[in-house]
Amino acid sequence: MEKTTPGVGLSEPGGRLGRMHIVSLAGGIGGARFLRGLRLTASDASITVIGNTGDDITLFGLRVCPDLDTVMYTLGSGIDEEQGWGRAKESHVVKEELAAYGVEPQWFGLGDRDFATHIVRSQMLEAGYPLSEITQALCARWQPGVRLLPMTDDRCETHVVIEDDQGKRAIHFQEWWVRLRASVPAQSFALVGAGTAKPAPGVLEAIEQADVVILPPSNPVVSIGTILQVPGIRAALLAKTVVGVSPIIGGAPVRGMADACLTAIGVETTAQAVLDLYGSELIDGWLVAEEDDGVALDGVRVVARPILMHDAEAAAAIARTALDLALELAR
Amino acid sequence: MEKTTPGVGLSEPGGRLGRMHIVSLAGGIGGARFLRGLRLTASDASITVIGNTGDDITLFGLRVCPDLDTVMYTLGSGIDEEQGWGRAKESHVVKEELAAYGVEPQWFGLGDRDFATHIVRSQMLEAGYPLSEITQALCARWQPGVRLLPMTDDRCETHVVIEDDQGKRAIHFQEWWVRLRASVPAQSFALVGAGTAKPAPGVLEAIEQADVVILPPSNPVVSIGTILQVPGIRAALLAKTVVGVSPIIGGAPVRGMADACLTAIGVETTAQAVLDLYGSELIDGWLVAEEDDGVALDGVRVVARPILMHDAEAAAAIARTALDLALELAR
Repeated sequence: MEKTTPGVGLSEPGGRLGRMHIVSLAGGIGGARFLRGLRLTASDASITVIGNTGDDITLFGLRVCPDLDTVMYTLGSGIDEEQGWGRAKESHVVKEELAAYGVEPQWFGLGDRDFATHIVRSQMLEAGYPLSEITQALCARWQPGVRLLPMTDDRCETHVVIEDDQGKRAIHFQEWWVRLRASVPAQSFALVGAGTAKPAPGVLEAIEQADVVILPPSNPVVSIGTILQVPGIRAALLAKTVVGVSPIIGGAPVRGMADACLTAIGVETTAQAVLDLYGSELIDGWLVAEEDDGVALDGVRVVARPILMHDAEAAAAIARTALDLALELAR
Repeated sequence: MEKTTPGVGLSEPGGRLGRMHIVSLAGGIGGARFLRGLRLTASDASITVIGNTGDDITLFGLRVCPDLDTVMYTLGSGIDEEQGWGRAKESHVVKEELAAYGVEPQWFGLGDRDFATHIVRSQMLEAGYPLSEITQALCARWQPGVRLLPMTDDRCETHVVIEDDQGKRAIHFQEWWVRLRASVPAQSFALVGAGTAKPAPGVLEAIEQADVVILPPSNPVVSIGTILQVPGIRAALLAKTVVGVSPIIGGAPVRGMADACLTAIGVETTAQAVLDLYGSELIDGWLVAEEDDGVALDGVRVVARPILMHDAEAAAAIARTALDLALELAR
């Protein structure tokens, strides 16, 4: 893998980071919590986050971007910390009223505060703004301290092929994830629109200018994997030093249902298998839990450390380790 | 004016009303409260309400129909009784969040429960349903006990020509009414779209089948006057027995700012002037307050009675008087 020269102001690991440029890909909760740690430990760096929009869904005529919002709310101190998604101090009057009208779906939990975000977004979409500009406008309020970009401005939605008593069919990712809680096995995933999607403005430029790229412990299939499917993004990352944090510890996902997604694409739920999935062409460094020491892949530096994000400080320490490894590998 | 033969089952005033068909035109609060009285006193009659949609406005990308909703909520026992509009036990989380995003306008008071109505309506509009079908769908929940029809499915909005330090310009009715509280004099009203608007399906048929038509004490300019501007509606009413309740008592509007609207079109704020405005071609009977006894117009039977709607019972008594008068005139 080609290595780039670290940017101006890039300093020793642990030292002042100056104008270092970091790119991170992110899904929802796990990614957002990792990013909070990264921002804490690399407070002087410029961080660009490329967010997954494959989970996006139109509900009640409003465009909902769960992963972008989870990152935005988490970094903007508006998140429901307990739940990991949605707004703190949330109420659900609108949802209850919609249910009283008999409007479907009723299985997706949108709160009143959250609704306002989707109303603003939808109004701007209707007015012709691309999602990237809308995300920037929303972030003007939340001040996440990172530059948050959707992976694409194009509609690019993850659908899931399942087979149940209604036969074989493709449903929206959220219906599988939220309504069915992944209880029906996924046979495969289809990223509808991926063929013609273009990276959002700024995405390829950010990668090109990045000193290092960090992959948080987000879902390797339907979060990171989805972003990597947008034509051009994976290719741009190959030229960079990329360090990933394993989303699997001791054979189980740290959170979420990554196992159901991995199983669907024939990949074991292990730190080794996820590394193999990403491949050494993409990955330069791989951070695993201490109990997964022994994971190895030619051309990849594997480091075993505590990687459970108990809290913001733990997340910062893990991000620090990933960043130090990346900086070392980028040198 | 041509008189129609009362329908089958039409009985004596005060007797059982059977399958009598009543059509009523209505604006917002005053109209809705009158209709509640009418429904109470004519519980066996079939009542079709033709609602004003000239006040409708698109806010935050959502279509808001204030008058239809006021009628629907009032007759469906969901209204904020104190305020006269909006939902009872309302909260305002979404509105506060939109304000936190800096989104305009912030002068229109939409509550969370109310938002759900506008979300459902907007989603159905986007899906291609006409407003009349959407109103029917919303009423399936509220069961208002009347058939509520928008005056038109076409966009037909009242704009107000004003002149202030920003010069002479036309603004949306709601901006004049709610934001400016009619503090800047209206020079004129323009019903944008009225030239090509068609009565909503069922409107002309309901008028044709009506035994009597009642005009509640709604605003004669921007509520009743607006409905009468939809091509075909006024003409259809001319063939019917129409009784109106004066919205003016002793030179002042019963509620709202009808005086500001009347002044704008050069009409005095008196029960006499409003009757003259409607005209004897349209009106057969006119109910005024006792203090307005003496109001007269050739071809119109004027009756002076208490017409202040203190409560639902008072509204029912007034509706009863109007209905009895209409039935007598229709005989």
